[in-house]
Order: sequence, then structure tokens, then C-alpha cells
Amino acid sequence: MAYENVTLDPTANVYFDGRCVSHTFFLADGTRKSAGVILPSELTFGTAAPEVMELHSGACRVRLAGADVWTSYAGGDTFSVPGDSSFEIAVAEAVSYVCHYG
Amino acid sequence: MAYENVTLDPTANVYFDGRCVSHTFFLADGTRKSAGVILPSELTFGTAAPEVMELHSGACRVRLAGADVWTSYAGGDTFSVPGDSSFEIAVAEAVSYVCHYG
Repeated sequence: MAYENVTLDPTANVYFDGRCVSHTFFLADGTRKSAGVILPSELTFGTAAPEVMELHSGACRVRLAGADVWTSYAGGDTFSVPGDSSFEIAVAEAVSYVCHYG
Repeated sequence: MAYENVTLDPTANVYFDGRCVSHTFFLADGTRKSAGVILPSELTFGTAAPEVMELHSGACRVRLAGADVWTSYAGGDTFSVPGDSSFEIAVAEAVSYVCHYG
């Protein structure tokens, strides 16, 4: 599913020495999103606003802050993360995602 | 400089085990481009169509196929590569780019 009529910031966002790279884009109504990839690794991401991670490819396990269990996700799945929180992600196969904020 | 009114493919393109990551996008007239990042590394890219690499950040040296000399580039610079050719790139500081094809 492509995102039409968006404004793309061509300067990449590089996190964790390149294990996560994303591009910020804005919908026509100004809503900010990011499209990115997380390479095979185990990382912890913090959140400010709540986030919905929409996965487009790959395979990973995710554990939300305070949770005991890890949940597996693949391309086509989504998961939600509360704001002012964090999640651990263990990526087995590079994950392409779109992050929806708020 | 942001790219307005584009269509973004959210599935990332991952090259050289993640040392280069890009997203393909299309202008309103259907012209294909990609926005990406090359992490600190020394890589060789092949070209099919001619390419113009527009750098948005970072620092690198580039040697076109058949050339003896390396040329230094930084954010704000562009360089052109003939089609059906290749270029070597030595990235000192992660380079954000937009690739224009044709």
C-alpha cells in the first residue's frame, strides 16, 4: 500500500548506528508519519506520543514496557505502544514499517 | 528541501546488509526517485539508467568507473553517474541522498 500525496523529508533519520533508518513524511493534512526499516538486531525504542507500528515486511518479536511476554509479528501486522513508554524489539528478518503517531 | 505531493512506497530497499537503505517515491507525474542513506562504508553501486545523486547530508568520496581520481562531496552537492556503469563511494559520515534516474 503506497502513501499518496505526501510530503517527504529526504534527509534520513539514522538510529542505533544505522540499525534503524527512517524517513519522515507528512500526509496532506499535515499528519506526521515515518517509514523505516529495522535491521536484524535487539533494540529498545522510547515513545513520546503513542505509536502504532504498521509492519510491511520482515519478522520480529516485541515486548512492551512492563510486559512479561514477547509477541511475534510479521509483515501485515500492527502493534500499538503507549505514549511516554518504550518497547523492546528483536528483529529476526529486516522489518519495514510505517510509524503512526498520536 | 522537502518533496511535496509524492507517492511513497513504505517498504524499504535494503542493500549491502543495511549499509544502504532507501525508500522509493514517485512525483505527481510518475517520475521515480529514491531517498536513502549510505552509512560509513566503502561500496560499489552499479547503474542501469544514468543517475544524479543529490546529497542532503554527510561526507564522502566518489570514484566513477574508469576514473583515476576520487572526488569529495558533502551535503548540498550533487554528482552524476552514466547509465550502465558504476561508482565507488567511500562514506566518512552517513550520507543522505535523493537519487534521480534517467
